[in-house]
Amino acid sequence: MRYLMTFSYDGSKYSGYQKQKNHMTIQQNIEDILTKINNSEVKIYASGRTDAGVHALNQKAHFNLDKDINRDKLRNSLNKMINKDIYIKSIEVVDDNFHARFCVVHKEYIYKINVGEYNPLEMNYIYQYNKELNISNMKKACRYLVGTHDFKSFTKTGDQKDNYVKTIYKIKIVKRKDNIIISFKGNGFLRYMIRNIVGLLIEIGNGQRNPIDAYTVLIEKNRTKSGITASPVGLYLNEVKY
Amino acid sequence: MRYLMTFSYDGSKYSGYQKQKNHMTIQQNIEDILTKINNSEVKIYASGRTDAGVHALNQKAHFNLDKDINRDKLRNSLNKMINKDIYIKSIEVVDDNFHARFCVVHKEYIYKINVGEYNPLEMNYIYQYNKELNISNMKKACRYLVGTHDFKSFTKTGDQKDNYVKTIYKIKIVKRKDNIIISFKGNGFLRYMIRNIVGLLIEIGNGQRNPIDAYTVLIEKNRTKSGITASPVGLYLNEVKY
Repeated sequence: MRYLMTFSYDGSKYSGYQKQKNHMTIQQNIEDILTKINNSEVKIYASGRTDAGVHALNQKAHFNLDKDINRDKLRNSLNKMINKDIYIKSIEVVDDNFHARFCVVHKEYIYKINVGEYNPLEMNYIYQYNKELNISNMKKACRYLVGTHDFKSFTKTGDQKDNYVKTIYKIKIVKRKDNIIISFKGNGFLRYMIRNIVGLLIEIGNGQRNPIDAYTVLIEKNRTKSGITASPVGLYLNEVKY
Repeated sequence: MRYLMTFSYDGSKYSGYQKQKNHMTIQQNIEDILTKINNSEVKIYASGRTDAGVHALNQKAHFNLDKDINRDKLRNSLNKMINKDIYIKSIEVVDDNFHARFCVVHKEYIYKINVGEYNPLEMNYIYQYNKELNISNMKKACRYLVGTHDFKSFTKTGDQKDNYVKTIYKIKIVKRKDNIIISFKGNGFLRYMIRNIVGLLIEIGNGQRNPIDAYTVLIEKNRTKSGITASPVGLYLNEVKY
């Protein structure tokens, strides 16, 4: 039987989602507990990894169990045993061909920036930029990024891939009190792509660069042109749609 | 010269505000840095202590320095050197007779309860009750508590004092999405007083007790009558007025 679970986590204390030797990761904690419950090894396959410090509100992962189990009971056991900064929201049965990564139709990420006074209570949850940003210019820049493009300029330095083409369906920027909240909806994102786009948007918002630079950087297809990588703090995987 | 500073902190990682041997406290961290900057010992006197895990949005403390220093420079140095989960918002000069504790006119605390689904990202910031509460009954109970009363029933078990009389000017309960936010404004609060009141309000909100019990517990003047002590998580010192 194949199951799909929806879960949330506070990424602050983890070396990211993906299992790594000698590092505390979200995947490791969930697999350890599932393996304990199942009495034999269970591997989970997520919609994608998140970097160290990045949070998830609705991450998805599938896994197989030998037997048909009571899903509510499994969910309760899991939540009792896993770390308190991870939470299994729901578990559903899916087709044996379903794959949590390959079947993704779109994903939404959110990035939060505090442009007001430093807030020590938010240091792990909202990027503390603490200076004003010109939202109107940031919005102008986003118009060049929406659509199907080769996003090589925005991927992780040195990340070699055959294909850097992704589609961003929508970028929305709103301001709520002192926070700028940017949401990205797309069919998939390269490693560091959102943090590199946010880095460029910050440089455009603070006047270091012009909105048109989003276009010139994009067509360069060269990571060295785009600028800073924004902090993982402030980034949330919000939604995965199949 | 006497200075008054306003500061905020995330209490999650501390054994409370007040200095204790072999424990990490907020007072200790600030005093260590101030002493380093001043080149001789500095003691700070806060409006009151907060328990382990309790947060502050606008705590106040006074201290003396031998010389007249540039306050902006001092504030910047402090913020560079103290832990990142503490933040000095402002420093002002006050009269030599001013005392951050004895001159308090009123204080406001806020308590946040999540009555919706468990949220692992809020576990240190909003008390995760995760079950419904009857706000209307909680509000009824508060009517008995507002005013000048002997609050002995709501103080810390075993805390001996000559006088348990305090005045609560206002208790306000609002619901924002899944969170119940209770604010308490009073001339001062006994140790655990707010957490014990919140504990009783929760027992009234979930139907274990009736609103009138706030009155009967109050007049008993006996801590054993009041019920649970609510978690420190969710409690914020919001305002201190002189």
